[in-house]
Amino acid sequence: MKIDAKEEFTYLEQVFNETGFSKDSSHLLADTLTDADLRGISSHGIQRLKWYLSLVHEGTIHPENKVKILKESPTSLLVDANKNMGQIACNLAMNKLIQKAKKSVISIAVIRNSNHFGTAGYWARKAVKKGLIGIAMTNTRPLVVPINAFQAFLGSNAFAFTFPAKPHPYVFDGATSVVAGGKIQVHDKMKQKLPGEWVVDKHRQVVTDPKQAEKSLYNAALTPNQKGGGLLTLGGSSEQNSNYKGFGNSIIVELLTGILAQGSISADTNVGKHDFSQCLLAIDPSFFGDLDGLTKRASKMFDRLRNLPHIPGKEIKVPGDREYRFYADNEKHGVSIDDVTAKQIEKIGQDLGVKVPKKLD
Amino acid sequence: MKIDAKEEFTYLEQVFNETGFSKDSSHLLADTLTDADLRGISSHGIQRLKWYLSLVHEGTIHPENKVKILKESPTSLLVDANKNMGQIACNLAMNKLIQKAKKSVISIAVIRNSNHFGTAGYWARKAVKKGLIGIAMTNTRPLVVPINAFQAFLGSNAFAFTFPAKPHPYVFDGATSVVAGGKIQVHDKMKQKLPGEWVVDKHRQVVTDPKQAEKSLYNAALTPNQKGGGLLTLGGSSEQNSNYKGFGNSIIVELLTGILAQGSISADTNVGKHDFSQCLLAIDPSFFGDLDGLTKRASKMFDRLRNLPHIPGKEIKVPGDREYRFYADNEKHGVSIDDVTAKQIEKIGQDLGVKVPKKLD
Repeated sequence: MKIDAKEEFTYLEQVFNETGFSKDSSHLLADTLTDADLRGISSHGIQRLKWYLSLVHEGTIHPENKVKILKESPTSLLVDANKNMGQIACNLAMNKLIQKAKKSVISIAVIRNSNHFGTAGYWARKAVKKGLIGIAMTNTRPLVVPINAFQAFLGSNAFAFTFPAKPHPYVFDGATSVVAGGKIQVHDKMKQKLPGEWVVDKHRQVVTDPKQAEKSLYNAALTPNQKGGGLLTLGGSSEQNSNYKGFGNSIIVELLTGILAQGSISADTNVGKHDFSQCLLAIDPSFFGDLDGLTKRASKMFDRLRNLPHIPGKEIKVPGDREYRFYADNEKHGVSIDDVTAKQIEKIGQDLGVKVPKKLD
Repeated sequence: MKIDAKEEFTYLEQVFNETGFSKDSSHLLADTLTDADLRGISSHGIQRLKWYLSLVHEGTIHPENKVKILKESPTSLLVDANKNMGQIACNLAMNKLIQKAKKSVISIAVIRNSNHFGTAGYWARKAVKKGLIGIAMTNTRPLVVPINAFQAFLGSNAFAFTFPAKPHPYVFDGATSVVAGGKIQVHDKMKQKLPGEWVVDKHRQVVTDPKQAEKSLYNAALTPNQKGGGLLTLGGSSEQNSNYKGFGNSIIVELLTGILAQGSISADTNVGKHDFSQCLLAIDPSFFGDLDGLTKRASKMFDRLRNLPHIPGKEIKVPGDREYRFYADNEKHGVSIDDVTAKQIEKIGQDLGVKVPKKLD
């Protein structure tokens, strides 16, 4: 079914407010989830609401806690999210990084004691809206099986990068694993086999049954019950397609998040603290050349890419094309939510006395 | 055959000196190539010598030209390599970035009018030797076919990242393409078929014949004679294994090199200027925590990774493990060079009156 994005936003804002988040934080959290749904990234949209509320109820997230700046320099920030949602610390950090990059060309923030921060792209897009290059990354629960290994250890470790361009910025936003866990849930709901080298079992055999794959990810990521198997890194199951490169990229995110923050690495977020860490960067391209000129150069390269001779009926989509197309369409016609999520938000609305968005179709 | 690395270095230093490079530049160039051979990255070792000299003879490289700093701030550098080898500009830039990062936590350099810079890892390792995180990237000739496209447009776009660790730093160093072109040459020399989804032809069919693959790369990269086909990005030939992620990573390198430097993008290095651009970064982790403590945390994570349950007879090698093992062994027993290269260096030595390294086995 579809719901209106404005109604979604109002509903979410009220739900978060009723759950103990401040007015500002509720506004921000509602915006990050609605924005993901508008961009067609429904894995990071309102379907996360039930999980977010459960994090509060189980005491992992403390909605009243204030973010603490532990250390600050003209280029750098070390931030303690103080067991509140990642969005709250990252919003403060990226606002500061933007100011710092405008003065000092480049800036970096590392955030500890954090949790889910929405899409990585949300934070990188915040920078690009101000004419800056934005970078955002996070570690996650242990979901990803290293090369040659039998069990999950790395996070799916999202990474986003933005660069100014027309008609919309370049927005790369994705997990360093071959796919995000959400894509497997979608295949399960559609009763489709997994088509690629996405998941392996405890013997490193590729899994095509989405239910089996989901069970293995659930055990690895959300229980202390690691039985082997999990997602693969980009490059798939064997060395012959250079899966060690995807493995290496995933480790880079671990180093710049959990290690640099001195928080948990992904492998240890399953038992114990349940904390994630984030790293954000902003770079001012106008140090290197006129912003309009650089934007034109990038836009021209993207147009040349889109128009290369290619497979008939397919497109060469530049990262960002898909989400900006979804955004324009979903803003007009509403965002899609699945039946399970629809039931969850109805129940949550009833429990908290918040008006549930009406069905559009 | 094998040659002694010290003899290789002396030979290279003399050859570069005889070719018009300054004493300092000759020393540096010799070091970058010998270092690559010591690390087992022979694609970037002495086998590049003949090509380097041809760049000088054809007038692409001007060995007497001085590097120019076009713009400088406490965190940032815009450098003109002035049509000399990339190593010369990158050495100056990384030395400055190290000083800047020690004072300002993070620093960035963009280099234009450059050319081949050796391995990306050489520059990232320069930073990590000083306790910093190092990042280095370059664009290249057009070798890589974008998703769904029929012809090469992107470079193989090398990317390196280092992080302090024991017994050796983390060193990720590789092309953003599924493999580097050199790996195909190796399969050709060994008369082996290409085992993975590495190269496609002009109809986007996967190529397994190394000779056909090499011809397609040669046309795309080294002649103005683009006939279609080329290397794939990480993720292979089809969208089902998320090749758009490898595509996105490759574009990020184009943006931070050719676009930010306002030089040629990879697609245009084949005709016209033949310039490459580079981007280097240094980050001081000690802003975020005690360096020894961070090094221990990273080293412990790597040890846990190496010791995860895994396929019997295989290893879980952390990026860097392979090259540091090679280094220790090759320093003692000599570096391997192939027969074609051996003949080339003999001829070059004779022409320039430089003593050729003797064969060890």
